[in-house]
Amino acid sequence: MTATRQGTPLYRDPAAPVDDRVRDLLARMTPREKAGQLNQRMYGWDAYRRTPDGGFELTDALYAETERFAGLGALYGLLRADAWSGVGHTTGSGAEAGAELAHLVQRHVVEHSRLGIPALFVEEVPHGHMALDGTVLPVNLAVGAGWDPGLYERAAAHAAAELRARGGHVALVSALDIARDPRWGRTEECFGEDPYLAARLTEALVRGMQGEREPDGPFAPDKAPVVLKHFAGQGATVGGRNSAESELGLRELHEIHLPAAHAGVRAGAAAVMAAYNEVDGMPCCGNRALLTGLLRHRWGFDGLVMADGLAVDRLARVTGDKISAGALALDAGVDLGLWDEGFTHLEEAVERGLVSEEALDQAVARVLRLKFRLGLFEQPYSAGPFPDPAAGRDLSTALARAAVTLLHNDHGVLPVSTGSCIALLGPHADTVAHQLGDYTAPQRPGIGTSVLDALRRTGVDVRHAKGCALTGDDLSGIPEAIAAAAASDLAVLVLGGSSARTPGTEFDANGAARTVVSEMTCGEGVDLAGLRLGAAQHALLDAVTATGTPTVVVLVQGRPHAVPEAAERAAALLTVWYPGPWGGEAIADVLLGRAGPVGRLPVSVPRSAGHLPVYYNHKDTEYGGYVDDGAGPLHSFGHGLAYTSFAYGPPRLSGRTVEVDVTNTGERHGRTVAQLYLRRLVTLVWPRALELRGFQAVDLEPGECRTVAFGLGPDQLAQVGADLETAVLPGTVEIRVAESARRALTAVPVELRVDQSFTAPDETPL
Amino acid sequence: MTATRQGTPLYRDPAAPVDDRVRDLLARMTPREKAGQLNQRMYGWDAYRRTPDGGFELTDALYAETERFAGLGALYGLLRADAWSGVGHTTGSGAEAGAELAHLVQRHVVEHSRLGIPALFVEEVPHGHMALDGTVLPVNLAVGAGWDPGLYERAAAHAAAELRARGGHVALVSALDIARDPRWGRTEECFGEDPYLAARLTEALVRGMQGEREPDGPFAPDKAPVVLKHFAGQGATVGGRNSAESELGLRELHEIHLPAAHAGVRAGAAAVMAAYNEVDGMPCCGNRALLTGLLRHRWGFDGLVMADGLAVDRLARVTGDKISAGALALDAGVDLGLWDEGFTHLEEAVERGLVSEEALDQAVARVLRLKFRLGLFEQPYSAGPFPDPAAGRDLSTALARAAVTLLHNDHGVLPVSTGSCIALLGPHADTVAHQLGDYTAPQRPGIGTSVLDALRRTGVDVRHAKGCALTGDDLSGIPEAIAAAAASDLAVLVLGGSSARTPGTEFDANGAARTVVSEMTCGEGVDLAGLRLGAAQHALLDAVTATGTPTVVVLVQGRPHAVPEAAERAAALLTVWYPGPWGGEAIADVLLGRAGPVGRLPVSVPRSAGHLPVYYNHKDTEYGGYVDDGAGPLHSFGHGLAYTSFAYGPPRLSGRTVEVDVTNTGERHGRTVAQLYLRRLVTLVWPRALELRGFQAVDLEPGECRTVAFGLGPDQLAQVGADLETAVLPGTVEIRVAESARRALTAVPVELRVDQSFTAPDETPL
Repeated sequence: MTATRQGTPLYRDPAAPVDDRVRDLLARMTPREKAGQLNQRMYGWDAYRRTPDGGFELTDALYAETERFAGLGALYGLLRADAWSGVGHTTGSGAEAGAELAHLVQRHVVEHSRLGIPALFVEEVPHGHMALDGTVLPVNLAVGAGWDPGLYERAAAHAAAELRARGGHVALVSALDIARDPRWGRTEECFGEDPYLAARLTEALVRGMQGEREPDGPFAPDKAPVVLKHFAGQGATVGGRNSAESELGLRELHEIHLPAAHAGVRAGAAAVMAAYNEVDGMPCCGNRALLTGLLRHRWGFDGLVMADGLAVDRLARVTGDKISAGALALDAGVDLGLWDEGFTHLEEAVERGLVSEEALDQAVARVLRLKFRLGLFEQPYSAGPFPDPAAGRDLSTALARAAVTLLHNDHGVLPVSTGSCIALLGPHADTVAHQLGDYTAPQRPGIGTSVLDALRRTGVDVRHAKGCALTGDDLSGIPEAIAAAAASDLAVLVLGGSSARTPGTEFDANGAARTVVSEMTCGEGVDLAGLRLGAAQHALLDAVTATGTPTVVVLVQGRPHAVPEAAERAAALLTVWYPGPWGGEAIADVLLGRAGPVGRLPVSVPRSAGHLPVYYNHKDTEYGGYVDDGAGPLHSFGHGLAYTSFAYGPPRLSGRTVEVDVTNTGERHGRTVAQLYLRRLVTLVWPRALELRGFQAVDLEPGECRTVAFGLGPDQLAQVGADLETAVLPGTVEIRVAESARRALTAVPVELRVDQSFTAPDETPL
Repeated sequence: MTATRQGTPLYRDPAAPVDDRVRDLLARMTPREKAGQLNQRMYGWDAYRRTPDGGFELTDALYAETERFAGLGALYGLLRADAWSGVGHTTGSGAEAGAELAHLVQRHVVEHSRLGIPALFVEEVPHGHMALDGTVLPVNLAVGAGWDPGLYERAAAHAAAELRARGGHVALVSALDIARDPRWGRTEECFGEDPYLAARLTEALVRGMQGEREPDGPFAPDKAPVVLKHFAGQGATVGGRNSAESELGLRELHEIHLPAAHAGVRAGAAAVMAAYNEVDGMPCCGNRALLTGLLRHRWGFDGLVMADGLAVDRLARVTGDKISAGALALDAGVDLGLWDEGFTHLEEAVERGLVSEEALDQAVARVLRLKFRLGLFEQPYSAGPFPDPAAGRDLSTALARAAVTLLHNDHGVLPVSTGSCIALLGPHADTVAHQLGDYTAPQRPGIGTSVLDALRRTGVDVRHAKGCALTGDDLSGIPEAIAAAAASDLAVLVLGGSSARTPGTEFDANGAARTVVSEMTCGEGVDLAGLRLGAAQHALLDAVTATGTPTVVVLVQGRPHAVPEAAERAAALLTVWYPGPWGGEAIADVLLGRAGPVGRLPVSVPRSAGHLPVYYNHKDTEYGGYVDDGAGPLHSFGHGLAYTSFAYGPPRLSGRTVEVDVTNTGERHGRTVAQLYLRRLVTLVWPRALELRGFQAVDLEPGECRTVAFGLGPDQLAQVGADLETAVLPGTVEIRVAESARRALTAVPVELRVDQSFTAPDETPL
């Protein structure tokens, strides 16, 4: 403990180095106060209630929780609003009141902390801040379809600014899960199936939310430290089952599931979230090799590790009780619990010798460091400036537009010819709610644009019929849809799934959906054994295509559903994932040709659940396929058409650069996404068929040709070797540049022989 | 080089220790002769042809192959007969002529080897010797359903004796693959999904074929050294895709995929076969950690490692050429190739320094050691005594009967009431060929019994109609089946799949089916994306059950097909896997009550391919199921009904023994298989829901009660720890004894606390 010359404690001195302030403060704290800093047990929405005059008052629950530890480490979800929390427009805090609510809570915490330690306000920001009036962005899977880290960085920056303007501090963001099995209901939260694409988008997310800054430097008032979810391997749980086991090996973990996390850590991410799942028998939250050996020692991460909600308590399954579960998690490397009972007994755990006081101090130091870096000791009650709401809407719409992916387009049926009469059909034709995805707050009426809204605004001649619901087998609306299709020049059939929670949904203690009602087919806790759409949707598709009217199918979905009939019978097929509130506008823009389709598949689309897995970067074995069907995907990773066509010349290798000439060979302006794939020839571990190692979007006028160049550095060439070290190893690789993984298989390659090793990156075995 | 006192070389002295003989012989060999001992390139059926007088003559191909290396290490499949080899009754060798053919070939080899080294004759014996007149046994999956290692040991002994009587030496046997994904066409070759059950049956197989003997001792003339297939992890390839990648981690490998191999090695297996697949990036045939580090150093295995067919050449995919592929495989621990080009250039590989001469010598020594142990230097032309053919038939039939598994039996519709008129329907009702499974030689007419044959012999009133084929959607036969069902008291519908190869089948270079014709739905190379039966079979099931006549469905199959309709609509349901030639008799015996159903499921039966995986020993997570269906299997591992019922009392723990009283509570004699399951409570790695660790069949008269006792030793309690060591670790476990895994979940447990460690077995990390 050190006092400054003025007599104030050192930790109060904003000019002192953060580490010194942390050390000073830690030395003043009691064990109880320390344990309290690691406590994030309370649901934020239980901390307040609305008063009749529209203001807020604090609850006994908050008083008790603060009293228990003479302070409060972190508070989760103070601003969260959704069906699970029960927070809506009548009970929660809108945009204007957020900072006031945060101020109220923070004042109580600070005033009841002997040392005046403020709380961290931790909020869900997976695709926009999950609070009333938060600007909803497309889900990660749609962001993945955009292949546009720059645009995503700007949108992430906007979301962080909204969070800080509302008084929130820390953003929980989905980033690290890799979509390997679309039965998993959280597929929508993944950037896709590919580690390289996910790594680039994770970097963009971290840069956008946290801003460019010194390592360990302070956060700007419109920037938010992120907690990257989830570490690690959660996308690999067997059967697509949420938080089940992942049997995967260490090389698979390193090659596929860790690159996004490593990229995020290198970009300076403030925190990661330890996942529910185990990896080959070792639960992430109790996995010292993962959280300490790999993450801190080898990667040099000095940020915070937060456990997923109740994940520490789940360790009691193997430790026998929650106190030792908390001790195991702390010892393994978890710093901050979430809703756990186990992590609130760490004082006792230390006393009983279940975990060292040193481990406790280290975790507390990490929590405090983040609070100092956020400036909370200096300005506990301040909120950042409000960003321009119009900018948020524009960014969300731009991301939605970037996600619209054209999978086939027979005879150029799209864009819609001027003057066509359109039958707009299907359960997604006129809804905003089902465009949004899971982890979304209730929306105010009038926010967002359905496809029908958007088409009508343009003055297109539209006949609308819903046809059927997303789920169930009620066929009663189909005749009306048939009639509309038969009387029109073109049918646009908007089908898909939904992650919209309703008040009738029942939830697990961690907010995952348990009992599914209404039309919910996706999201956390909503895993599917089958990948078909609802039975009535298939009947509607059959009926509408049978009319003979050319039919465009648009799939709005949180996972790739298996609808091979649409690939066979529709004249054109698009997928837009969950495009957010203004998705209807984005879809209409593309249908009408006001924007070209620029999305590319971030996941391979399977023919059925029985074909899984179908990811493009499987190992290069001689496997020929199932005898009852091919083993390949229905649509390839990276695939997406434009309204024009492109020709890729042969790749030219010059030193460590590869160049390809790309020409727009069609008659319209368009964008292609040039994708750099590696195919390893001579190598010491069994190679994948292809590995994406670069991508660039190129906009070309008709007839225009441009040269695309990719550098071939360690990010492109490194591999996880036989000893699990990641390095550029001697060997021979083929470089292929193409418009999709499938095209890359037949693209002209250029061969690169690597005789000498580059300097190895700092990645080492787990 | 040492000569005995009589002037003959030491290696010719039968009284000298084998290792001394090996050393002496090795020292006399040229590099070319050494490389030749590791050569098993030739297909045995190319070594001879039948002469017009019914004898045999040798081919130029054999002369050339022997000439090339001045000898021949091993010859694969001299006696093999099937559609791939093209060997049939007119071109191959029947039982009587086998020894003559082997003699002819061996004489040529010995006389053209400077040092007089005989060849090893290696034959496929996966379920009986795959040669003309070989006694076909039920496939491994059916053996797994029998849960009867003693019976299987006797059957294996018979098969080995048949092999040796024909002049064959070494038996290739399926044993080690664990059935984790029924899409895999080789599921039929697995003992099931469980490592403990597979380990006990692998031990029985080794004991039966090799006999009880000294380690390294000689083989009796009716015993055959085995090559256990496949090492390792082949049952875990993703998507059930044959020889594709397995992403699994080391703990999963140790817990699930290695126990059968370890048990086989401990039982003294002479050889293992290195598998096609890779494990987490390292191909088995090039995996030194697996073949040398684990198998030889840690397990102490001193036998032979043979590569799977062409698996060494496949390594050229990563080494760049076949010569270095051979070098990599030899260096990793492969001793003997199979059909490979790469393994025939080892002399050059040593000269070029790609692999050491010491590695070459070690491999040659292992091949020679086996030849000495077989007594081939003393009696190169001898064959063993012929076993009694009737005994073979009886053993095959007994195994078939043990495999018949009754999955449900509403209102006791089975056994069939005396005097009932039966409609016997379905594509499996009157066929022997489709009862046999893959790896089966052509059968002589009249061998075997179809269900129809067997029922008619008993004098039962049977109306027969095939109804439809196994595959396709030809519904033309269904009306006849409906009529027969409607006119009968009971319909017995025999449905399923087939692995029967026909002359029209096309094959890969390793004998796996490539182009599937006719009614083949299973076997090597015949993987399925969907687990449904052929469309017409489902239509037949619908039509027959719709008649209202009580319907018994019998599934004859090489994998668990997903037929939930049969579970719902049939009055009784049985599965018999591929029961072998006399399977029809076994089925009829059980239908008529001449034998009780005693089979138990060795695999969990899924509801659909979308539900995979469904094995019972998944990790114990909180997962609740898919929202569109449960995640559990349709039928549980271990399940199988008798014609009576049983009650299990609570388990009693006394020291390291657990006892349970089992009572026959029904009105007929019957057999129950008491299954001992562990459920780990306090443990340092994430536990499985249940682990089978013991089983005992108990035959009981009505009202009879017997006490079943299980010892709880290291085989029961050991686990793969956090450090991958297998040992009995401190912790708490529940012991449950029940009739199936599903029943065990709700059975009364008894808790055992293990405070001190047992001595660890000799298993250590890979």
